[in-house]
Amino acid sequence: MLHLASTTPRSWVDRVSADLDELLLDHTHCEKKAASTALNLVFRHDATFPHLAAPLAAVAREELEHFERLLELLADRGVAFRAVTPGPYAARLLGGARSGGLARTVDTLLCAALIEARSCERMTRLAEYLPEVGLRNFYRDLLQSEARHFSLYVDMARSLPGVKDAAVEERVRELAAHEADVLANVPAAPRMHG
Amino acid sequence: MLHLASTTPRSWVDRVSADLDELLLDHTHCEKKAASTALNLVFRHDATFPHLAAPLAAVAREELEHFERLLELLADRGVAFRAVTPGPYAARLLGGARSGGLARTVDTLLCAALIEARSCERMTRLAEYLPEVGLRNFYRDLLQSEARHFSLYVDMARSLPGVKDAAVEERVRELAAHEADVLANVPAAPRMHG
Repeated sequence: MLHLASTTPRSWVDRVSADLDELLLDHTHCEKKAASTALNLVFRHDATFPHLAAPLAAVAREELEHFERLLELLADRGVAFRAVTPGPYAARLLGGARSGGLARTVDTLLCAALIEARSCERMTRLAEYLPEVGLRNFYRDLLQSEARHFSLYVDMARSLPGVKDAAVEERVRELAAHEADVLANVPAAPRMHG
Repeated sequence: MLHLASTTPRSWVDRVSADLDELLLDHTHCEKKAASTALNLVFRHDATFPHLAAPLAAVAREELEHFERLLELLADRGVAFRAVTPGPYAARLLGGARSGGLARTVDTLLCAALIEARSCERMTRLAEYLPEVGLRNFYRDLLQSEARHFSLYVDMARSLPGVKDAAVEERVRELAAHEADVLANVPAAPRMHG
């Protein structure tokens, strides 16, 4: 359903849960970055595709809600929120986007869709396999709204004037293969995309 | 209570309500910009003042809610959301901020506080004097959460290590005088800060 070209194994959860606080800190930054990506897209497309403003604002607001929930979780666990150096995943993924005009916009939206899809898939693994029941429930809860974001971004790409559904489907497949390749080659680290 | 150094007269409502759809469009962009300002401050201060992340995220989320409500209002009125050239108010106001280090951070937060205060004051005028009862209610409703943002930003400035309450109070007075001066000199236009 999420159109990913690879599956995260349970062993990923075992690895990252050895450094759980670092993973949660990274996830907190992911939510912040996801909000910022959506809001920046509103600014970038005010003039060209104003119909994207409402769905993008809704995504940004939901990501901010999650960011706030993660900040609370960190505080509850006595983990200080602090800056972290971003991993290479998102930049490498976006490196596969075509440049120029409409193709660029389509690919930017589809890369955002795939980041959401992968985040959702990994949250599903965390909801299944984390040792702490409280955290499993936390992730189960978060998943509900994250799961919609993949489809929302794909729908936004489909909604662009002059873009055919079949072309979007094909491009999702191509970028999903690229995403799986990028993910397979990032250094192992306690990160949502590491 | 909002510490503004000038008062918007009823005649402002009479003027801007002659071009109401333009005013609503400008207000829509103001909410988007307010969300972006708050979120950008989270990014800027991750490393220096991570305790600001939670209150800033809450402000950004509330501004996005308002942005979405304004987008709906525009759609209901048959007004297309579109790009607008920003007025000179915010840039001129921020031109009065001190540069460098902590003073810059204090002034950035206090300028954000004053923009919130002025927006709140003007929304109060709209809630009082707009001809359409539906819009008066819309603004009365929006006001409730906007009114807190001024205090939130001032509290964030006060919360910075090494910043004295008395210094913040004095700087609010100075910047409020600057704000009133900036506002008095922007060109008349159907804008929240015009």
